[in-house]
Amino acid sequence: METEPARMTAAEASAAIQARKMSCEELVRSCLTRIASRDAVVKAWLRLDPEHAIRRAREADKLPSKGPLHGLPWGVKDVIDTADYPTTQNSPIYDGFQVGRDAAPVAVVRGSGSLILGKTDTVEFASHGRKAVSTNPYNPAHTPGGSSSGSGAAVGDWQVPLAFGTQTGGSHIRPASFNGIYGLKPSWNRVSREGVRMSSMTLDTIGWYGRCVEDLIMVGEAFRIFRSSAPVEVKGLRVGVCRSPVWREIEAGGELALSTAAKRLADAGAIVEDLELPDPFSWLHDAHTAISNSEGGASFLPEYVNAHALLAQGLRDKVDNVLQITSQQLLEAYALADSCRPVLDRMFGPSLDVILTPSSPGEAPEGLHTTGDAVFNKMWTLMHGPNVGIPCCFGPKGLPVGVTLVGPQMSDGRLLAIAAACAPVIDAAPEERVRRLWG
Amino acid sequence: METEPARMTAAEASAAIQARKMSCEELVRSCLTRIASRDAVVKAWLRLDPEHAIRRAREADKLPSKGPLHGLPWGVKDVIDTADYPTTQNSPIYDGFQVGRDAAPVAVVRGSGSLILGKTDTVEFASHGRKAVSTNPYNPAHTPGGSSSGSGAAVGDWQVPLAFGTQTGGSHIRPASFNGIYGLKPSWNRVSREGVRMSSMTLDTIGWYGRCVEDLIMVGEAFRIFRSSAPVEVKGLRVGVCRSPVWREIEAGGELALSTAAKRLADAGAIVEDLELPDPFSWLHDAHTAISNSEGGASFLPEYVNAHALLAQGLRDKVDNVLQITSQQLLEAYALADSCRPVLDRMFGPSLDVILTPSSPGEAPEGLHTTGDAVFNKMWTLMHGPNVGIPCCFGPKGLPVGVTLVGPQMSDGRLLAIAAACAPVIDAAPEERVRRLWG
Repeated sequence: METEPARMTAAEASAAIQARKMSCEELVRSCLTRIASRDAVVKAWLRLDPEHAIRRAREADKLPSKGPLHGLPWGVKDVIDTADYPTTQNSPIYDGFQVGRDAAPVAVVRGSGSLILGKTDTVEFASHGRKAVSTNPYNPAHTPGGSSSGSGAAVGDWQVPLAFGTQTGGSHIRPASFNGIYGLKPSWNRVSREGVRMSSMTLDTIGWYGRCVEDLIMVGEAFRIFRSSAPVEVKGLRVGVCRSPVWREIEAGGELALSTAAKRLADAGAIVEDLELPDPFSWLHDAHTAISNSEGGASFLPEYVNAHALLAQGLRDKVDNVLQITSQQLLEAYALADSCRPVLDRMFGPSLDVILTPSSPGEAPEGLHTTGDAVFNKMWTLMHGPNVGIPCCFGPKGLPVGVTLVGPQMSDGRLLAIAAACAPVIDAAPEERVRRLWG
Repeated sequence: METEPARMTAAEASAAIQARKMSCEELVRSCLTRIASRDAVVKAWLRLDPEHAIRRAREADKLPSKGPLHGLPWGVKDVIDTADYPTTQNSPIYDGFQVGRDAAPVAVVRGSGSLILGKTDTVEFASHGRKAVSTNPYNPAHTPGGSSSGSGAAVGDWQVPLAFGTQTGGSHIRPASFNGIYGLKPSWNRVSREGVRMSSMTLDTIGWYGRCVEDLIMVGEAFRIFRSSAPVEVKGLRVGVCRSPVWREIEAGGELALSTAAKRLADAGAIVEDLELPDPFSWLHDAHTAISNSEGGASFLPEYVNAHALLAQGLRDKVDNVLQITSQQLLEAYALADSCRPVLDRMFGPSLDVILTPSSPGEAPEGLHTTGDAVFNKMWTLMHGPNVGIPCCFGPKGLPVGVTLVGPQMSDGRLLAIAAACAPVIDAAPEERVRRLWG
């Protein structure tokens, strides 16, 4: 029996479409079937019109291929504008509001032939406030993470091969860990985030999810952010294991994932050593807090002025600056981050190819009132370099846990080449994920 | 005879509306009359619906005041989304395209009671490509500057008291100089630019025009960016005259304005001294080029992919990276700017209150094929601090020329207080501007 189309990676589906062994319509119908059977539990989607999606897939089948992304369906986090669906921000203020214009990242993949399947649930404005109703595909009593909750759950549950998320703290990489999927947070500002709801200019980054590193690379090529990079071998690769200045927050699942990934890489011939960051890096977490709250105050002022009662208290607090962050503190936070970035970049070189660090404290926490803690992601978001989330293992609660690979700023192509080499070593559970969710 | 409402500053109009001595409708009708008499020459507006504007003014008259901005009409540069007009970017790609949602800065002033009179002409995407058809109010053979061409011309020609512009290089402060008006470019990221077309995340800044410093302050208060600041006296004020590393580009008009402003301040008791910037600042102009071109490549990729033939060559060149800017060069440009910002900020203190520097090489050049040169603005845009453009005098060609006051990052309130004290000294030509344009 042939593989169910919805079970393919994006790269496999692309190859089948390019070879005309599978139609775009077959792929979309398979995704819709999967969604129909699982949506009552996983609740990943805020808006999805099956008939519209099938019509678009049929159109794609009639057109000459626009490249590797042709005909591949996407989930789009509902803080990102799309021409053909509303953008609600999961906020009552924008209930049903449709802008009619694709955000920049959506325009690029649509212009490359991709289909927008629907909008995925999110934490309100990808910041604070209402949580998504989405559940973890591996256990509906647990969160899929957030704020890219629906995008992470939909890709993890084989409902759609690709999805956009965003990250200001840990909103993209953490759901990758919790849902057993691959995610790229590219270097800051290498992919335009126009039309993606702003929360913090210095931190907001668009990212995408897939089911293997090849999926992430295929999308990256459409964004032209990758230069050809020499092939990478795990043998001899210099990996720095960074427990990070917030290691006290680690849980059993996170510790297991990091040590498992490190051991597997060492067993495969990588040179794995502990990496300590210089002292100033210990303050980056606080700098992130100052920047995200202070910039958030400017970002949410329009809703504060025009729809005060409908805006979540946590967002009103940013405008009111309840943390009492002074201009001086904000400038010091900027200056610290600005000075740490080149220091981090220069650590890479002859003695360090890539940093291995936790994606999350551990497995997805129980309950939908939380999306987990971004404590292990914030520093790397502020450092602006590329991060790749890779699934690693299952933790003591039986849920997936991933790890993060980090590279210097603008090294996205090289980091993905490293990730492609490391992923088969780190990720020992792909069959287990299929078995658990497909039965 | 009472003053024509259109001839008032925004602050004067606000006071009259608050005191119910003038209705919002009277003000809007007066602006529309002025526009009707001058639009065939100045051509500041891309879209303006007089009946819609009058209806909105009547509504404002029926409502309780929402504060000082209540009933004041705005011109909005057509790279900025408004709920009630299209946003064309002056690009054939977006001809007639209406998004139906206010950009963040528009939402804030609308929520504060202001009226959106119409959309003003702009250089394509506020970047490169088609120029505005707008002319300089003082001589239609000359440019009003750009890219905020229509906003600058409309405020300068007394067609509207307030307008939004944007600045990536010198698009806001230069038109202030050329049109004899006041302009604030606030600290980077203190005012959300969501819904304003992106060109360069690191550089794009929203700004506003008015007819006096009080106008700029009144708007700034709606954006909550100003903290109360001690009153400022010109006597004893420490002013650093910065000819800047690009002084070789100065023209007669610009030299006249800078020396005139410096002399007037010194005559009024300020301590005026030349200010030299450290060597690394000489490279900021090149850093600006690397950043604006490289980031522009990401920003214009959506149109490059979806509407290649309709995108201006200069924008396609950014995507194609014809300047061949490497990742390394971009990172060096970021690192240079990041290291210069705190150095500049620290220059302010006991021996320096404010920097006085050119707003433009000189008067507005002849011809509408150019918008003039941003060479004297780019460094300050990259430094992220607030800039206030103040009219100073008329140059040898009989056109207005202004100067710029610069403060450290996040000192917007203090800089405006300094500007309020200095403006009556620097700007000796307000009656001359009225005489020239009102006859």
